[in-house]
Amino acid sequence: MITRFDRLAMEFPPPSDPDPDGASVVQELLGGKFGEMSTFMNYTFQSFNFRSRQVARPFFDLVSNIAAEEFGHIEVVATCINSMMTGASPLSGVEPKDTPMGALKSTRNAQMYIAGGHGALCADSMGNPWTGANVFSSGDLIEDLTHNYFLETGARSQKLRVYETVDHPAARALTGYLLIRGGVHQVAYARALEHLTGARLDKLFPSPRIATDKIPECKPYIKAGEHTKLYRFSSSDYQELAAVWNGKHPETGDKLVVVDTPPEGFVPTDLPAQPAGWAPDYAPEEIAEIAKKLRAAAGLGDEPTGEVIVPPKRRARKAAKKS
Amino acid sequence: MITRFDRLAMEFPPPSDPDPDGASVVQELLGGKFGEMSTFMNYTFQSFNFRSRQVARPFFDLVSNIAAEEFGHIEVVATCINSMMTGASPLSGVEPKDTPMGALKSTRNAQMYIAGGHGALCADSMGNPWTGANVFSSGDLIEDLTHNYFLETGARSQKLRVYETVDHPAARALTGYLLIRGGVHQVAYARALEHLTGARLDKLFPSPRIATDKIPECKPYIKAGEHTKLYRFSSSDYQELAAVWNGKHPETGDKLVVVDTPPEGFVPTDLPAQPAGWAPDYAPEEIAEIAKKLRAAAGLGDEPTGEVIVPPKRRARKAAKKS
Amino acid sequence: MITRFDRLAMEFPPPSDPDPDGASVVQELLGGKFGEMSTFMNYTFQSFNFRSRQVARPFFDLVSNIAAEEFGHIEVVATCINSMMTGASPLSGVEPKDTPMGALKSTRNAQMYIAGGHGALCADSMGNPWTGANVFSSGDLIEDLTHNYFLETGARSQKLRVYETVDHPAARALTGYLLIRGGVHQVAYARALEHLTGARLDKLFPSPRIATDKIPECKPYIKAGEHTKLYRFSSSDYQELAAVWNGKHPETGDKLVVVDTPPEGFVPTDLPAQPAGWAPDYAPEEIAEIAKKLRAAAGLGDEPTGEVIVPPKRRARKAAKKS
Amino acid sequence: MITRFDRLAMEFPPPSDPDPDGASVVQELLGGKFGEMSTFMNYTFQSFNFRSRQVARPFFDLVSNIAAEEFGHIEVVATCINSMMTGASPLSGVEPKDTPMGALKSTRNAQMYIAGGHGALCADSMGNPWTGANVFSSGDLIEDLTHNYFLETGARSQKLRVYETVDHPAARALTGYLLIRGGVHQVAYARALEHLTGARLDKLFPSPRIATDKIPECKPYIKAGEHTKLYRFSSSDYQELAAVWNGKHPETGDKLVVVDTPPEGFVPTDLPAQPAGWAPDYAPEEIAEIAKKLRAAAGLGDEPTGEVIVPPKRRARKAAKKS
Amino acid sequence: MITRFDRLAMEFPPPSDPDPDGASVVQELLGGKFGEMSTFMNYTFQSFNFRSRQVARPFFDLVSNIAAEEFGHIEVVATCINSMMTGASPLSGVEPKDTPMGALKSTRNAQMYIAGGHGALCADSMGNPWTGANVFSSGDLIEDLTHNYFLETGARSQKLRVYETVDHPAARALTGYLLIRGGVHQVAYARALEHLTGARLDKLFPSPRIATDKIPECKPYIKAGEHTKLYRFSSSDYQELAAVWNGKHPETGDKLVVVDTPPEGFVPTDLPAQPAGWAPDYAPEEIAEIAKKLRAAAGLGDEPTGEVIVPPKRRARKAAKKS
Amino acid sequence: MITRFDRLAMEFPPPSDPDPDGASVVQELLGGKFGEMSTFMNYTFQSFNFRSRQVARPFFDLVSNIAAEEFGHIEVVATCINSMMTGASPLSGVEPKDTPMGALKSTRNAQMYIAGGHGALCADSMGNPWTGANVFSSGDLIEDLTHNYFLETGARSQKLRVYETVDHPAARALTGYLLIRGGVHQVAYARALEHLTGARLDKLFPSPRIATDKIPECKPYIKAGEHTKLYRFSSSDYQELAAVWNGKHPETGDKLVVVDTPPEGFVPTDLPAQPAGWAPDYAPEEIAEIAKKLRAAAGLGDEPTGEVIVPPKRRARKAAKKS
Repeated sequence: MITRFDRLAMEFPPPSDPDPDGASVVQELLGGKFGEMSTFMNYTFQSFNFRSRQVARPFFDLVSNIAAEEFGHIEVVATCINSMMTGASPLSGVEPKDTPMGALKSTRNAQMYIAGGHGALCADSMGNPWTGANVFSSGDLIEDLTHNYFLETGARSQKLRVYETVDHPAARALTGYLLIRGGVHQVAYARALEHLTGARLDKLFPSPRIATDKIPECKPYIKAGEHTKLYRFSSSDYQELAAVWNGKHPETGDKLVVVDTPPEGFVPTDLPAQPAGWAPDYAPEEIAEIAKKLRAAAGLGDEPTGEVIVPPKRRARKAAKKS
Repeated sequence: MITRFDRLAMEFPPPSDPDPDGASVVQELLGGKFGEMSTFMNYTFQSFNFRSRQVARPFFDLVSNIAAEEFGHIEVVATCINSMMTGASPLSGVEPKDTPMGALKSTRNAQMYIAGGHGALCADSMGNPWTGANVFSSGDLIEDLTHNYFLETGARSQKLRVYETVDHPAARALTGYLLIRGGVHQVAYARALEHLTGARLDKLFPSPRIATDKIPECKPYIKAGEHTKLYRFSSSDYQELAAVWNGKHPETGDKLVVVDTPPEGFVPTDLPAQPAGWAPDYAPEEIAEIAKKLRAAAGLGDEPTGEVIVPPKRRARKAAKKS
Repeated sequence: MITRFDRLAMEFPPPSDPDPDGASVVQELLGGKFGEMSTFMNYTFQSFNFRSRQVARPFFDLVSNIAAEEFGHIEVVATCINSMMTGASPLSGVEPKDTPMGALKSTRNAQMYIAGGHGALCADSMGNPWTGANVFSSGDLIEDLTHNYFLETGARSQKLRVYETVDHPAARALTGYLLIRGGVHQVAYARALEHLTGARLDKLFPSPRIATDKIPECKPYIKAGEHTKLYRFSSSDYQELAAVWNGKHPETGDKLVVVDTPPEGFVPTDLPAQPAGWAPDYAPEEIAEIAKKLRAAAGLGDEPTGEVIVPPKRRARKAAKKS
Repeated sequence: MITRFDRLAMEFPPPSDPDPDGASVVQELLGGKFGEMSTFMNYTFQSFNFRSRQVARPFFDLVSNIAAEEFGHIEVVATCINSMMTGASPLSGVEPKDTPMGALKSTRNAQMYIAGGHGALCADSMGNPWTGANVFSSGDLIEDLTHNYFLETGARSQKLRVYETVDHPAARALTGYLLIRGGVHQVAYARALEHLTGARLDKLFPSPRIATDKIPECKPYIKAGEHTKLYRFSSSDYQELAAVWNGKHPETGDKLVVVDTPPEGFVPTDLPAQPAGWAPDYAPEEIAEIAKKLRAAAGLGDEPTGEVIVPPKRRARKAAKKS
Repeated sequence: MITRFDRLAMEFPPPSDPDPDGASVVQELLGGKFGEMSTFMNYTFQSFNFRSRQVARPFFDLVSNIAAEEFGHIEVVATCINSMMTGASPLSGVEPKDTPMGALKSTRNAQMYIAGGHGALCADSMGNPWTGANVFSSGDLIEDLTHNYFLETGARSQKLRVYETVDHPAARALTGYLLIRGGVHQVAYARALEHLTGARLDKLFPSPRIATDKIPECKPYIKAGEHTKLYRFSSSDYQELAAVWNGKHPETGDKLVVVDTPPEGFVPTDLPAQPAGWAPDYAPEEIAEIAKKLRAAAGLGDEPTGEVIVPPKRRARKAAKKS
Repeated sequence: MITRFDRLAMEFPPPSDPDPDGASVVQELLGGKFGEMSTFMNYTFQSFNFRSRQVARPFFDLVSNIAAEEFGHIEVVATCINSMMTGASPLSGVEPKDTPMGALKSTRNAQMYIAGGHGALCADSMGNPWTGANVFSSGDLIEDLTHNYFLETGARSQKLRVYETVDHPAARALTGYLLIRGGVHQVAYARALEHLTGARLDKLFPSPRIATDKIPECKPYIKAGEHTKLYRFSSSDYQELAAVWNGKHPETGDKLVVVDTPPEGFVPTDLPAQPAGWAPDYAPEEIAEIAKKLRAAAGLGDEPTGEVIVPPKRRARKAAKKS
C-alpha cells in the first residue's frame, strides 16, 4: 500500500506563456516507451512479482523503493504539461462561438484539449497511449536489473533530447531534475548488477556520453548532492537499500548515501481554470459555492484546508480587473 | 509523492493448488478496461490534471485519496495472480530437459510463464496489454465523476463475474474484498455527483442488482463496516473527504464514516521461488549468499529486515529436507 | 440514413448445446480483418467518401447498397455467437458462490462472459478488437473495387475454414448462408472491375477453389437462386445496381438478377436470460414488471409489441413450471 | 436488417475554403472514443446481444432505434470531413510533378490524403484507428444504460470543444446539429434509468454545464423542437419507444414526443473530384463515359438517377471555363 | 538464409536541405499498411509458410525472390528518410542549452528525433508502429497472389500521392524508383494469377490510372528497361522465375525479361553525425579513435574498409573550417 | 540489398506428430517482444539509421552483419511452427462437412488455421501482432548496443522457457540451436560495449544463469564450436567484424573466431499440403499440372529445379497408395 502527500518532488517556475507543441513533446517523458509511466510500472510490477523476496531482500527493497519515487516522477511530468497548457486558451471571458480554442487547431496533440481539459494524457508524444506492453517483469532478478539499467539509459537519453528541443521554463526545470534523479536510478541498477555478478559496469557512465554538469538546470541539484542520494520512500520498510546503494558515484566519485526519509517536496501551484476547456467547468463559481457549503457542513471551516501556490499572473489579472 | 509500506490491503489464504487458467481470468481485474490499473490511473491522472483545485478542494481530495487506495488494489490483484501461479511448475528438482513447464503448454496465457516468471502481467484476461486509452480525464469535474461512477459500476460487475467463474481460494478472497471496497468508491462518486448537482442517485444501488450480503466472502467485511469507511491515505493531506463522504449508505442505510488513517494492512506471504521459471533464478542460493554478505557489509545484521509470512507448505518441505 | 427492421437475414436453428470455444472461433467472422465488421465498414466509408458520385452513379449505388446488406451480416454473426453461448452457464437456479460460470474458466475467450453477458464482442477469434485500420477507402474507384474483390475472397476463405472447424448447427447455418451472399458480393465487385477496365476476371472463380455446391448448407440457397440475386436495400435509392449487376454468374452461368426490395427476413429468436451473466439482470423479473407498467402507461397494451420466436427448450421449462 | 436512403440527417453549407487541420480535429467526433462510431457500434452491439428482449421490450426498442439514428451521425461527420477537405488540392489542372498536394505536407493527418482520397478515416483526431475496444456491451441492462448515459455525456463535451476549436462553416453546422441530437440520446438513457431504478437523474442536466441555447448553431434546432423528438427509424418495429421517451425535457421542461417516422433528410452535395488525390480517378471522364453506357444498356436512361446538390463554386468554375 | 551487400538499390542525390515534415510523410512508404515493411514481410512469410512448394515451384520461387528485393526497398526508404532528416539540427557546434533541436518542436513526428537519432522509424506517417497484422499469408496460393496484386496496387497509389506531396529531391528520387519496381511486382503477381486461372488481368493496368511515363523521375528507369526486368536475388535458387515472368508488359507491350543476377547497386552515402541527436554520439571523435585502434589490432589496416560516398556539403564545410 | 539462398540455418527432424498448442507457444520466439522479428528488425533499422558509419565502421559492420543472420532465425522459427502444425488436420481425404479441422477448435491460436494455412503468424504467443514499437534505434551507438545486449538476454531467457514448456522434437531442435546463436550475439554486443567503454561485462555471463552445456540439444553445437563463431553473411562487406569479435568467450574461455562466409545451411523439407487448410489449395493437383507446363514452356525442364527433402511419412503414404 501507499500513502500520498500533496507535495511535488521538484519546484516549478510559475506558469508562463503556453507552449502546446512543447507540451506535446514532453508527453514522451510521461507516456512514451521510456517515459515515467514505464519506469513507475516496471518497478512496481517487478516488486509485486518478486518471488523469494526474503532471500533477496536488498534487491527487493531497492526495486520497491525506486518504484515509489517514480510515482513522484509521473506527477511532475503531468504537472509540467498542465503548466505548459495553461493559457493555451483564454483564462476568462470565454464565448464558445468566438472559437476560443482556435489557436490550438493546428497544434500537434488535439486530444490534450478535446479529450482532456488542457491537461496531460496517458500517452506519448505521438498521442499513442502508454501500453502495458512496456512493462518488463521476467521474474529473473539479473535479467530484470539488466532491463532496468537499459530503461534508465534510454530514459536519460530522451530527457536530454527533450531538453534540447523545448526551452519552455517548466520543461527545462523538469528535465534538469529528472536527469539527476534518473541518473541515480541508473547507477542504482548498475550497482545491483555489480553486486550480483561482479561485473564492473562503472565505465559505462555517463550514458549517454555527456556529464550532467554541462546542463545548467542540473547544476544546482549536483551542488546539493542530489545525484548521490537514494531516499527511502517509506517510514517502515525497504531498509536494505543501503546494502546495494553504497560505494562511489561512477561519474563524480562522490560517496553514495541513503537518506532515510522521503524528500520534503514542494507545494504545488493551483493552476487556473480553463473555462473554454471546461476545466473544471465552464463557470466554476457554482462549484466553489457548493464546496464551501459542504466544507462548512462537515465542520472543516470556511477556507480550503489544502496548501497551494496561487500563480502570480492570475493574481495580477484579478487586480487589474478590480481597478 | 507517495510513501510505500510493505503491507497488503487484505489477507490471503496461503498458496494452495495452482490454477493458471483461473489466474489468466483474474488478469481482467488487473489490466482489463475495468481493472484496477484503470481505476488507479484514472483517478491519479484526474488528480494531476485538476485545475482550480483550491476552489473545488473536497472533490480534489476525494479523487486524489481514492487514487492512493487503488495502488493497494493493483497490488492485491497481482499478489493473487502470483499466488495462483505458485506451483504451476515444480518448486524444486527442476531439469529443463524434463519439460518442467509442460503442464502449462495449453493454458490460456503463455506470457505469464514465458515473458513473466509465473507472475502477473500488465494485461487483461486475453493477454491484451493495459492501455492508457483507458484513462478518462476530461478536466470537467461533473463529467469525470460521472465517468468514475460508471467505471466502478463496470468494475463491480466484472468482479462478480470473475467470482462466479473462479473458485480458487485466493481469487474468492480477492473478489470478496474488492466488491466491498469498490462499492465504497462507487458510492463516493455518486455522493459527489449528488452534492454537485442535487441529482438523487441513491436508487441506482445496488448496481449490478445484487447485494453484497449474498456473497459469503463479502460478509465479514460488511460485518466489520468496511462498506461504510473511507480511509484517508495520507497523514497530511486530503482532509476534506468528510465534506463529500457523509450521509447514509444507499444500500444498507449505515452511516458513512471517514477513517483518518490508512488501514494497517497484512503482512505479505513470501511466495516461493519457481526455478523452472527462473524466478528469481534457476538456483537462487547464490543470490541468498550475496544478499547476506551485502547486508552484513552494510551493517544491517545477518537476517533480512523485512517481515513476511513463510507459506506453510514450504515450511513443511524444509522440515522434510532436514530429516 | 437508414431505417431498421427487426428481421434477420437468415434462419437459425433453435439454440442447442452451448459451444463457447466454437463461438470464440466464429468471432473471426465478426471482428476479424476479413469479418463482417470489415466488409460493412469498408463499403460504408467508401460510400461516404465517394466523390463525383453522380458521374459514377452505378458504382456508387453498388457500393452503398452492399454496405446496407452487410449490416444484416454483422447482425447474423452476432446472433449466431449469442446462440452458441446460450446455456454456457445455467439458465436458472444460479447461486454465485456455486461457481455457476466455472465451466467457462478454460474456454478461449474470457471476455465473452466477463466483459460481455454471454454475447458477441467487437473483436476477432483471438480477442483482438476490430480496428478501423481494417477500413480501406482510397477514393480511387478502381483501387477500392480491387480491394473489395480481394476482401470478399479472403472473407470467403475464412468462412470455409470456420465451417470446417465448428460443427455447431448455428455456425453451420451461418457459414452456409454467408458463403452464398459473400459470393454475390465477390462477383459484384469483379463485375464492376470488368465494366470499368475490360479485364476478364470471371476465370478467377471460384476462389477459393471449391464450388459452394459441395457444401450441404449452401445448397438450399443455390436452389433458391440466392447466388444470383442482388437485393436493393432501399425503397428510394441505389437504382443503378442493374447497370453493374448483370450478365452471367461466373461459376454457374446463371443470369444475375436485381431484386428491387430487401429480403423479407426471419423473425429473431428471443434468447433466454443468462442470470449468472447478469444478462439482462440477475433477476430479470423486476424488469419485466416495470416494462409492463411503462407499456400500459404509454397506451401500448399489455403485451409486448415485438414479434419473436420463443425457443422451444424455454417453452418446455415454462410448461414444467406451471404444472 | 436495415434499408438505406440517400439523405443526410442535416443540411450542410456548400463546400467553402478547405480546412485540413480542422478536418483532422473533427475526426475525433467520428473515430474517437466518444465519436459517432462508438455510439453507433455500442448501441448496435447492445441490441444484438440483448437477451430476454421480449421481457424488456421498451428498452430493447429504445437502444435498437437509437442505434439506427447513429448511422446517420457517422454519415454526417464523414460528410463534414469530406467537405472540409474539398479543395485542399487543386480541383483541376493537376500535374503530379508540380507537387499539387504540397500544401498538405505539414498538416496534421497525412493519411487523409495519402491513404484516403481527401476523405474521412475510421480514426480519431490523432490518427489512431477506431477500435472495437470502445464497445461496451455487458448484457446487464442497467449497466449498459449507465454506460450509454456516460458515453453521451462525454460525446457532448467533445462536440462542444470541437465547436470551440474549429470555425469552419461545415464543422459548426455539424456540431450544432449533433449537440441537439446527442442531447436527445443523453436524455433518453437518463429516462430509461429513471424508469428502471427510480433514481432522479434530471438534475444532472445540462452536462456539460452549458445550455445549448447559448450556441447559435443549436438555436434553430431548439426552435424546431428537435431536442424533444425521438424519431422512430423503422416502419415496422421499435414501437415501444413511447414507453420510455415521455415526460419532460430536464433542461427546458418541454414535453418529450415520439415521431413515428424517420426525418425526411437532406439531399447530399456531390463533392467534386480531387484529381491529385485520385478520387475517384486522375481523369474521371473515362468513368463517366462507361457509367453512361452501362446505364443505357440497363435501360436506366441517359441521366443519373440519383438526386444530388451540385456545389455552386463548381458550377461557377464550369461557366468560367466556357466563356 | 540471406547474404547482405552494402549497396543501395538506387542512387540518391546528396543530402540537401532538411525536410522533417516531408520525411514524416515518407514514413508511410516504410511502415504504413502499404509500405515496404508490408511488402517485404508479406512475401517473406508467404515463402516461409509455403506448403508443397516443389509442386508449385515457379510460384514459390517468384514470391521468395520478390521478398528478397523488398529488403532493398525498406533500405532505400529508410535511407531517404535519414537523408531528409540530415541537417534538421546543426551538424556541429551544438550546445544543449541553446535548444539545438528547437526547430523540430512543431514538426509532425517527434519520435524521429526523441526516440530516434534523426532517423527512420518502423512506423507510418502518423507515427503508428508497423504491425504484423499487415501480413497476409493464407497459405492458399491463388488467394495470396490476389492479395499481393492488391497490395502492390495500393502501394503504387500511395507512392504517387507521396510524390505529389513531397518535392524534396531524395523523396522524388525514391518514389520515381519505387513506382517502377513496385510496378514490376504488380505485373508479376497479375501474371502469376493469369497463369494459374486463365483470367486476363492485363487490362487492369495501369492501376492507378496514370502511366509512369508521365512522371519525370520514372522516365530514366523506363528508358533503361527497368520496368521489364525481374532480377534474381540469388546465386543458387529461385530459378523458376522465368516460368511466370514472361510475355509482354501490359502497359508498354515490352518483353518481360529475367535478369539472372541482382542489380549491382549504388554505394551509400555516409550521412554525417547529428550531435544534438546523439547520433552516433554527442562527440563521435572518441568512437573514431577507438575504432581505429580496434581495426589496427585486428590487422585490418588504418583506414575503414567500407566504401561510402562522403556528402559534398560536409566536405565543403570541413574545407571552410580549415581556412 | 540482400541475396537469398534456399537453405535453413539449422537441421530439423522430419515432421512428426502435430502440436498446435506447442506451436502457438513457439510463436513467442517469432513475433514476441523478444522474438526473432525483433532482433532482425532492431539490427536492420540500426544499420539503416547508422550515421557517420565510416568513423565507426567496426560497429556498423557488426550490427549490419548480425541483422543478416537474424533473417535466417525468423526463417527457422517459422519453419518450426509449420512443421508442428503439419498433420493438425488430415493430409488427405478431406470433406469440409466432416469438420476436418474440428480438432483445432479449442487450441490456443485460431488464426494459425483460420487466417493462415496451418502456418506461422507475424504475432506472439497470445496472437498479438508483432509491432514496430519493438524496434529500438536511438542512433546513439552505446545506447543501441546496451539495448541489443539486453534484447539478447531477454530472448535467451524466453528460449529457455519455451524449451522447458514444449518437448516437440522440432521445438527442441530449434531452441537448442537458437540458444547457441543468440548467445553469440549476446557476447558480441557485450564485447562491442567493452571495446567502446572499457566496462568489463564478461562476468554477466551466463545470463540467464544456466550454462548451455546443460541443455542436451545445445551440446552438439558447442562441440562444433558454434558458440565461438561469427559468420560473415556477405561476400563483399562487413569485414571489420574481426575488430570487435575477438578475445575469449566469457563462459567457456574459448577463442572467438570470425568465419569469413555464411554457413552452408540445410536443405528445407517440403512440408505436405494441408487440403482442409486450403494450403496451397483444396486440390493442389491442378497447380502441379500448370506448374509443369509453365516450367516446360520456359525451357526449365520437366522436374522442379529446387532441392527439397521429402518428408518420410509422406513417401510412405505414396508407396501405400501405389500398392
